[in-house]
Amino acid sequence: MYRTHTCGELRLPDVGKTVTLAGWVQRLRKMGGMTFVDLRDRYGMTQLVFNDEHIPGISDQANKLGREYVLQVTGCVNERSSKNANLPTGDIEVLVDKLVVLNQSVVPPFTIEDNTDGGDDLRMKYRYLDLRRNAVRKNLELRHKMAFEVRAYLDKLGFLEVETPVLVNSTPEGARDFVVPSRMNPGQFYALPQSPQTLKQLLMVSGFDRYFQIVKCFRDEDLRADRQPEFTQIDCEMSFVEQEDVLEIFEGMIKHLFKVVKGIDFTGPFRRMTWHDAMKYYGSDKPDLRFGMRFVELMDVMQGHGFTVFDNAKYIGGICAKGAATYTRKQLDQLTDFVKRPQVGAKGLVYARIEADGNVKSSVDKFYSQEQLQAMKAKFDAEPGDLILILSGDDAMKTRKQLCELRLEMGNQLGLRDKDRYECLWVIDFPLFEWNEEDQRYYAMHHPFTSPKPEDIPFLETDTGNVRANAYDMVINGVEVGGGSIRIHDSQLQDQMFRLLGFTEERAQEQFGFLMNAFKYGAPPHGGLAFGLDRLVSMFAGLDSIRDCIAFPKNNSGRDVMLDAPSVLDDAQLDELQIRVELKQQDK
Amino acid sequence: MYRTHTCGELRLPDVGKTVTLAGWVQRLRKMGGMTFVDLRDRYGMTQLVFNDEHIPGISDQANKLGREYVLQVTGCVNERSSKNANLPTGDIEVLVDKLVVLNQSVVPPFTIEDNTDGGDDLRMKYRYLDLRRNAVRKNLELRHKMAFEVRAYLDKLGFLEVETPVLVNSTPEGARDFVVPSRMNPGQFYALPQSPQTLKQLLMVSGFDRYFQIVKCFRDEDLRADRQPEFTQIDCEMSFVEQEDVLEIFEGMIKHLFKVVKGIDFTGPFRRMTWHDAMKYYGSDKPDLRFGMRFVELMDVMQGHGFTVFDNAKYIGGICAKGAATYTRKQLDQLTDFVKRPQVGAKGLVYARIEADGNVKSSVDKFYSQEQLQAMKAKFDAEPGDLILILSGDDAMKTRKQLCELRLEMGNQLGLRDKDRYECLWVIDFPLFEWNEEDQRYYAMHHPFTSPKPEDIPFLETDTGNVRANAYDMVINGVEVGGGSIRIHDSQLQDQMFRLLGFTEERAQEQFGFLMNAFKYGAPPHGGLAFGLDRLVSMFAGLDSIRDCIAFPKNNSGRDVMLDAPSVLDDAQLDELQIRVELKQQDK
Repeated sequence: MYRTHTCGELRLPDVGKTVTLAGWVQRLRKMGGMTFVDLRDRYGMTQLVFNDEHIPGISDQANKLGREYVLQVTGCVNERSSKNANLPTGDIEVLVDKLVVLNQSVVPPFTIEDNTDGGDDLRMKYRYLDLRRNAVRKNLELRHKMAFEVRAYLDKLGFLEVETPVLVNSTPEGARDFVVPSRMNPGQFYALPQSPQTLKQLLMVSGFDRYFQIVKCFRDEDLRADRQPEFTQIDCEMSFVEQEDVLEIFEGMIKHLFKVVKGIDFTGPFRRMTWHDAMKYYGSDKPDLRFGMRFVELMDVMQGHGFTVFDNAKYIGGICAKGAATYTRKQLDQLTDFVKRPQVGAKGLVYARIEADGNVKSSVDKFYSQEQLQAMKAKFDAEPGDLILILSGDDAMKTRKQLCELRLEMGNQLGLRDKDRYECLWVIDFPLFEWNEEDQRYYAMHHPFTSPKPEDIPFLETDTGNVRANAYDMVINGVEVGGGSIRIHDSQLQDQMFRLLGFTEERAQEQFGFLMNAFKYGAPPHGGLAFGLDRLVSMFAGLDSIRDCIAFPKNNSGRDVMLDAPSVLDDAQLDELQIRVELKQQDK
Repeated sequence: MYRTHTCGELRLPDVGKTVTLAGWVQRLRKMGGMTFVDLRDRYGMTQLVFNDEHIPGISDQANKLGREYVLQVTGCVNERSSKNANLPTGDIEVLVDKLVVLNQSVVPPFTIEDNTDGGDDLRMKYRYLDLRRNAVRKNLELRHKMAFEVRAYLDKLGFLEVETPVLVNSTPEGARDFVVPSRMNPGQFYALPQSPQTLKQLLMVSGFDRYFQIVKCFRDEDLRADRQPEFTQIDCEMSFVEQEDVLEIFEGMIKHLFKVVKGIDFTGPFRRMTWHDAMKYYGSDKPDLRFGMRFVELMDVMQGHGFTVFDNAKYIGGICAKGAATYTRKQLDQLTDFVKRPQVGAKGLVYARIEADGNVKSSVDKFYSQEQLQAMKAKFDAEPGDLILILSGDDAMKTRKQLCELRLEMGNQLGLRDKDRYECLWVIDFPLFEWNEEDQRYYAMHHPFTSPKPEDIPFLETDTGNVRANAYDMVINGVEVGGGSIRIHDSQLQDQMFRLLGFTEERAQEQFGFLMNAFKYGAPPHGGLAFGLDRLVSMFAGLDSIRDCIAFPKNNSGRDVMLDAPSVLDDAQLDELQIRVELKQQDK
């Protein structure tokens, strides 16, 4: 071992000890005959003193050091005359007797500080230097701790972690698969799993009873800020359970994590909301409940008074922003611009201020009497000083989603989305199917193995769109961190589902034959869920993107700029795989 | 929850309780008016009684059940009149009040018993049924426990588990990579990692200090019985360490596993042997030390007496099998056949029995005097009743490997390779390079990042083949379960290594540029190792193949016969990836 102690370890009781430390040069201060060096490792920082009065000429040795040099030093622990209360080792320093330069460093392309001067691209290219920064490393330490605690919690409850294969078969339903040509089976391809869904269900058929796995999954999707082509799931499944059992166990897991990782004690049960209510009151299946501003529907009070925009609308709804009546005309115009952006897509915004005397002053005053506006105000329980914002449209769901964007924006503007507060929610009773206008067919909202609610099974054929699923999502602060369902364990019901989803018998057999076949051999009732570890960690770390809790993430083009992957293969390798690249003409 | 208790839980103190169980029908015994059913789940087996005297007609319901039906039953726990001491629940039975058939089962293609009637192929095709068998499930429970305990041990020592990417860059050195075409970067490919070697070294450059990961790795190799295209490593790396530190920590890990998993306490340190001694005395870099039979070299005593086979040999060596002088002529002929098999490749076998009077009776008596044979006997410390077996050849290493096969075979025949005994060994001081006759160049014995022993660095250019590496393997019972090395952290030394390995500067830059570049920014001294989890588990489980400790293994053609993967892609998918399959003509 190159050291007796780490750079984060020494304290006053160590004074007088001769120690050896190893680490990186964080900074260097030359004082003439005396040089101070802050030596850094993963565990902390220790001040070194190179004093010519102690060892003649030693400050000269130190003065030749550069940032990020790797040192090994031996010396005596001294009490500092001027202590640094901000540093855990701030009471001591090491008076160096002996310096060994273990490695030099060229000047790094950005500073290794919490607030670095390095841009995103540079940091990704030199990710190994970026990872030296405390801020980034702490995220990965948190990730380790969370994964470890998830395992500890589930192990205690009898869950077995079972590794499922990475080289599996392609299942065209859903997102695109990454595929892997097989050299031993020329012309054939493996696929990388989008999730171990079918395999964990097979493990239930196998009687494994309680399964989990922290596992890499892969989706060849176009990437947005919060997606990666490879991501990690906490994947879980249980047998002989009902929805309530699953919710209970995994609510417990999240509470356990909050407790051991963040010291937050959730005493009561998490809130629950049906998907229907979530859409109606928040315009989202993942409402952020750190603040109110529930939607109020206004068709009855606002329609039929001659304002044609509202009179022709299929939906009118609004939110009440407490205390925001002070918004200026300019701010309100900016909000109007916000909702009219193509990403939101509203046609316009109606607003109404509640004035000090209780009167309502709105942007549509000429169409409504004060009495009518008071009726509207009453719907919101609005008080003087509040600001009411109203959207309308010819499609209720679309308008709700626009109103949801507005609500979140108002939450941001009013500082209601505190990163240190956590509001956890189960969204339940999802619809089983989702109608796709374009393809004129139903898709499974979760996946084709999701069980309908038993009481809704009779309506599968007659009222397909309204059948509810035994499906649930866990939402924290408006982010879906996990979700799952009770599965179908009856092969006849599964056949019916495939039929409703427009699978021919052949296609169902081709894609899921092994699962349907397995179900003939005594499948137990089962269900489960999966959490996105990346999202969960970034939520706990208060990060805006999942990228910063991943050691070596890919950029928005799916590239690892540090490794320079993907890259071109040489012909011999392609030849051996018996495939050929055939680039399409670029569009002119 | 469909149950109040598991099928492995009920004991005498539960008598009188009303319980609900759920599980699978293991077997059914009809007794006329009374039917016994053994109900099985992951946790055990409980006897159910369907008694018409208790509930009229209930035995008829039970009689309609078949093997592997999934049941939910409610009833009262009774003490059994005839107890079954072999079953943890053997003191009680459940007198059933109510039976619910949760799912039926068609007749399984093989019996769900420890000794099944199912052949290998059938079991793999219906792996989800095979996994119902105790024998198979126990292996995966063991695997879970071992992985869990590895994490617990390493976490305690400050190791961080960091996930490295699965979609990386291709590194042509070594085995073949699996590759993944990138849709977003047409014509370019990711590779699946053969190991996270370079990434974990980058994490050391990042100052992570202590890293581990239980991680899937991939090699597109032709498969032997004990290889899988995807396999799992316990991958570890540490900074500021010397070889001794690594050995100590990971010897501790293996001891921890033996203790908590198998209840075996290793008190003293593990044995250590140089690679040179391992080859000299056992003809293998992974000697099985559960038994002796160390090689004895006989050039001095056996050469120059007119037996031309020996006189022309470059190596003569033998083993002494205690008490095997009783071997018949037939058995000795079979041993001769054994060493002459192409897999072993020896030309012949010389043997010598030590008779009761101490005389040596050999197959080459006509060339040697009794005195000369006694000199040979003395070399072995052989006693009456022993059998000496001797091989010779014109290549010492080749002959040693043949003698190694013979030694292992004798160990098997004499019952010296007890699966319940564990002999752990560090093999150290591996050569840094391995000469390849065919390519007329050196290859790295471990990998190009392995550090030479500091004292051997001066001989890198002058005596390349004899330079020793700071490399080590852990061997248990003749199986290499792990290995690693201290790495090069000096970029000049790394450049020299690449040159000695025949890399042009361009190729080294192309393949390892990011690593060599990273080393310029202050790389700490570091080293590590990786254990094969599959091998380690199968060793602990006493299995002959790693396949039985993997939930969904692939066969020797790399196929998952259950999932039917790999498989052909449709043209649209290939088109999107901008690749084409181009099958070669089969050889005629």
